[in-house]
Amino acid sequence: MPKTGKILMAHGSGGQLSHDLVEQVFLKHFHNPTLANLDDAAVLPYFANDSRFALTTDSYVIHPLFFPGGDIGKLAVCGTVNDLSMRGARPLYLTAGFILEEGLPLEDLERIVTSMAATARAAGIQVVAGDTKVVERGNADGLFINTAGVGLVPDGVNISGADAQAGDVVIVSGTIGDHGMTIMSQREGLSFNTPLVSDCAPLNGLVAALLEASSAVHCLRDPTRGGLATVLNELARRSRVGIEIKETHIPVRSAVQGLCELLGLDPLYVANEGKLVVVVAEKDAKEVLAAMRTHEYGTDAAVIGRIVLAHPGRVVLRTALGTCRIVDMLVGEQLPRIC
Amino acid sequence: MPKTGKILMAHGSGGQLSHDLVEQVFLKHFHNPTLANLDDAAVLPYFANDSRFALTTDSYVIHPLFFPGGDIGKLAVCGTVNDLSMRGARPLYLTAGFILEEGLPLEDLERIVTSMAATARAAGIQVVAGDTKVVERGNADGLFINTAGVGLVPDGVNISGADAQAGDVVIVSGTIGDHGMTIMSQREGLSFNTPLVSDCAPLNGLVAALLEASSAVHCLRDPTRGGLATVLNELARRSRVGIEIKETHIPVRSAVQGLCELLGLDPLYVANEGKLVVVVAEKDAKEVLAAMRTHEYGTDAAVIGRIVLAHPGRVVLRTALGTCRIVDMLVGEQLPRIC
Repeated sequence: MPKTGKILMAHGSGGQLSHDLVEQVFLKHFHNPTLANLDDAAVLPYFANDSRFALTTDSYVIHPLFFPGGDIGKLAVCGTVNDLSMRGARPLYLTAGFILEEGLPLEDLERIVTSMAATARAAGIQVVAGDTKVVERGNADGLFINTAGVGLVPDGVNISGADAQAGDVVIVSGTIGDHGMTIMSQREGLSFNTPLVSDCAPLNGLVAALLEASSAVHCLRDPTRGGLATVLNELARRSRVGIEIKETHIPVRSAVQGLCELLGLDPLYVANEGKLVVVVAEKDAKEVLAAMRTHEYGTDAAVIGRIVLAHPGRVVLRTALGTCRIVDMLVGEQLPRIC
Repeated sequence: MPKTGKILMAHGSGGQLSHDLVEQVFLKHFHNPTLANLDDAAVLPYFANDSRFALTTDSYVIHPLFFPGGDIGKLAVCGTVNDLSMRGARPLYLTAGFILEEGLPLEDLERIVTSMAATARAAGIQVVAGDTKVVERGNADGLFINTAGVGLVPDGVNISGADAQAGDVVIVSGTIGDHGMTIMSQREGLSFNTPLVSDCAPLNGLVAALLEASSAVHCLRDPTRGGLATVLNELARRSRVGIEIKETHIPVRSAVQGLCELLGLDPLYVANEGKLVVVVAEKDAKEVLAAMRTHEYGTDAAVIGRIVLAHPGRVVLRTALGTCRIVDMLVGEQLPRIC
């Protein structure tokens, strides 16, 4: 298939051109025996030592398709790997559904698929089933990707948004707002002395490391759309606890802070794609923090607050000035199509 | 949420309006404890008596969203249930990813979600994970849905497109072309004395019935995009066998045949959404056919041909006139956005 080509409606026909696209782009990069069977569904073995599995899905509509630190393909793999990881599951298999706009350069598609395959390898997972649809020019914006993921939940691991307990410590794995402000700066054509780079990364290795360090990890969440503030509110509501965080303890890059101030945005609400929030029993907080800091995606990990009995369902921020304010869930839309 | 409302960009923010949409539309209709947890991934139990699972995905971009016999929601459940069924898997769990266009009437979304929930109940499966994205007006066409599905493959069941053997009998479960020509007639605003209705249906019950009747079912495929001709070509190529079919044995409704002739289309290439092709050992063909005919989605099942040693990889049609012609895979695009 010539790289100078473009997606045609017939690439979505289910006929010969669909088969060519599957073989020359998707199978070429996602090569594994299960996918190569080209059956209607992948058939996969169970693993004898675990009794539960995790299942999740996300669609990706990010604009622009390519950005510093990643692209829609890398994001589509990381996002779903991370959602599985947030339940303590070990991600194993991914499906990939593509909705392509007629006229999309094949070169762009292949670049994205190559990036997905590289990210899948890095995360140690396989893309085992897929689908491609094509819509007429003007009926989609370049391409949209859906990934669904299956992971295994090791026996004894029970992590959910409902398990935060008063006294627990809240840790964030690194600087917040990098992804959202990178996309924003790309869209607005802004450039800085310190270039912004998305934090887009697969977090299953970091989760494995922190679960190794403690069996008292109660909650894990990745603060994507809606940012850290929204995720903390979700945890406070689900667990019926209060959360107190300290502004000065939350890591934010100065370039991100600067752009947020310029645009009147609050980094607490800006999306991340390679960060996670851990709620862990106080007794293990030190060990978990240390384990995270030795991992490449947790070097800037920091304790940012605590779970409290007071004000259940609410998140309270102690500001740099020493005052307190309630941090609500994101209301309205801050940065559309951030993932 | 008022039914007269429309989708706003903020419904995709991940914040408060996203949560409202999830609770007031998705959880309302897909109510089950797993989904209600609103965690990043669903955690599900294994079933002890099976050792393999099936995984598949499809995106749905059909236009129009509503049509006689179904809608994009029903189609999105049936299509993925059917893909799992074609491996002999018992479908259990579905994920649903929605890409909504800003301005989509909430009433349309709720009608579609209601239809998905009803179809899921009819098929005996649960929607356990989901995701919603919103793109600006003009960047999608109403809505697109992705579903991924997980099913269990009973021990001893081994069905794949590579297992057709010379001497096997080819059965189709009913009339072909109903879905494709229904969509075509809707788009073109054509009406007929006998109204066309899509065959959109979940086939897991039919598959269970035919697998009960025989342990010598070698292949199952649902002839969706690309139609019966494309599916037979896939089986011939994968199994390295020839296939011979008889034109007069292939069931086609007269309204479908008539519209195909009017538009210069061949029903062999027209999409179906509630039909399947069975390749079964000759010794069990009679029992399988009988079992299919007693099922609501197999009343018009018919033997249409045979697997042969001659012309491996090729499908040959014996016409009503007694001549033979090679039936190739669909080349080009016949009916875009048929599913």
